[in-house]
Amino acid sequence: MELVTLADIRTAADHIAGVAVRTPLLPAWWAGTDLWLKPEGLQPIGSFKLRGAYNTVASLPEEKRRAGIIAHSSGNHAQAAAYSARAFGVPCVVVMPNVAVPMKVEATRALGAEVILVPPPERDDVMAKIAQERGLNRVPPFDHPDVIAGQGTIGLEIVADLPDVDVVLVPVGGGGLASGVASAIKALRPAAAVIGVEPALAADAADSLSSGELRKWPTEQTYRTIADGLRTNLSELTFAHLSERLDGMVTVSEDEILDAMTRMVRGSRVLVEPSGAVATAAYLHHRAELPQGRTAAVVSGGNADPKLLADVFV
Amino acid sequence: MELVTLADIRTAADHIAGVAVRTPLLPAWWAGTDLWLKPEGLQPIGSFKLRGAYNTVASLPEEKRRAGIIAHSSGNHAQAAAYSARAFGVPCVVVMPNVAVPMKVEATRALGAEVILVPPPERDDVMAKIAQERGLNRVPPFDHPDVIAGQGTIGLEIVADLPDVDVVLVPVGGGGLASGVASAIKALRPAAAVIGVEPALAADAADSLSSGELRKWPTEQTYRTIADGLRTNLSELTFAHLSERLDGMVTVSEDEILDAMTRMVRGSRVLVEPSGAVATAAYLHHRAELPQGRTAAVVSGGNADPKLLADVFV
Repeated sequence: MELVTLADIRTAADHIAGVAVRTPLLPAWWAGTDLWLKPEGLQPIGSFKLRGAYNTVASLPEEKRRAGIIAHSSGNHAQAAAYSARAFGVPCVVVMPNVAVPMKVEATRALGAEVILVPPPERDDVMAKIAQERGLNRVPPFDHPDVIAGQGTIGLEIVADLPDVDVVLVPVGGGGLASGVASAIKALRPAAAVIGVEPALAADAADSLSSGELRKWPTEQTYRTIADGLRTNLSELTFAHLSERLDGMVTVSEDEILDAMTRMVRGSRVLVEPSGAVATAAYLHHRAELPQGRTAAVVSGGNADPKLLADVFV
Repeated sequence: MELVTLADIRTAADHIAGVAVRTPLLPAWWAGTDLWLKPEGLQPIGSFKLRGAYNTVASLPEEKRRAGIIAHSSGNHAQAAAYSARAFGVPCVVVMPNVAVPMKVEATRALGAEVILVPPPERDDVMAKIAQERGLNRVPPFDHPDVIAGQGTIGLEIVADLPDVDVVLVPVGGGGLASGVASAIKALRPAAAVIGVEPALAADAADSLSSGELRKWPTEQTYRTIADGLRTNLSELTFAHLSERLDGMVTVSEDEILDAMTRMVRGSRVLVEPSGAVATAAYLHHRAELPQGRTAAVVSGGNADPKLLADVFV
């Protein structure tokens, strides 16, 4: 299987410049002298997903792109697709489950997307039908080289800001973010370790990588974690990237995730959703399992339920 | 009176590089297509004050600096001084009022400073005595050219990220931030308008600038505003900068400040303290009084009481 290259990621960086925010690395002095946070919740849609989605749309031939795009998502990827389409001035359809959080549906509509609500089992059929009828281009949430290359731009920025980084901690859900970041880091700084982090309740990636085969966990299991962005299983493509380029996996508990959310908001004023807190949780609670040294934690997004955020706050 | 120059601000930028965070400009698409936020709450101490304090310490001759520094503050400047001293490995004493919020006292101590709590009226005497006894260097919160030059680096960064900026909105308390930002913007892009913003309940700067003389408002009046960082009056030095370089002032109400806090946290996931919200409040509620065009709002800090933040959230 062909893996994403550093050249692909550099092209993606050119594409997203001026659209995705060039996020800084924030020294988290309250946690230690060697931890930096990469706060992707500062992206205009609140998560790193904009990088991959926008790179995918930017990589389409102009003629095809003009027809518009289609995506399915119950969360951050919906807004990423909508924002990307809006930036190019092309139509966007987002198929969302009819059980999606109303706030997320509204946010997607506010970005100009046509939202189609369907019962979850009908999702793929509806999407295929509309894509076919209107000639729309699919923008997948993680299982595509252009998406992986887009997320990899985070790795380029980490090395640019912290050239002597020793450890990079990155959340693993479908694996697009971790695949991209690991591809960039291992190409630019092979000595640095890239460690994936996932909730113990959705540890399908740790399971797959330790067994050497792609293992899918059933949704009854993965849906127990509060980290809703990390309930997804790997794909063949992301499994191939992570098998080749990741140095290890660490799992964190639900309490550790909540604790990391509280400490990041208090210490660094960084709003974070549960999925975005796992990398920092690994640093705070599993230091002994990690390589030592200058560590960057990818804080992947900040779109949490306001009630939950208010709770972790006080 | 000699005013701070662009060269002074560029020197400050060299000083603070690698210590203060190079904050991005965040497109606030939820508020309009032409608003960007400069989120200074991302500084390691939660406000822009680090820029000026660190530049002041960096500008001391090494021999003098080694003796250490002293500052007085009840809030953000305390942490700015402590963080700066720690970065240089020199002693730091912070004189704080014995009525200061315990959390702020703790945060200052956590950064290694010696905190001395005094009854407010004794502040100046205690500070003079300790400075004298120990040979410490004073780091003032705003009334010093090195502080103004440090805050001015925000202006350099705005023009670097948004070269065709038309309007810059900046909070005005003691006036150090606005003096520095206006000095940078008017030197680099004279066509851009720099507008100061303050609470109507502490509109001493608007009063001073419209009357052409430095007018001090009594604390019984200015302490009515929730924006605790903006209760301070201008000094002769900042009044001189603002008279020469500011294009106008706008005042905002307490309700407008709270509304801007809510909308920034929801729309951009930017935690903001009341003082940090006034510039965005001016854009959201006083658009007709402002020059039109591409607008950057300086969000000066994010150190709000957690209870208040939780309230504006939900």
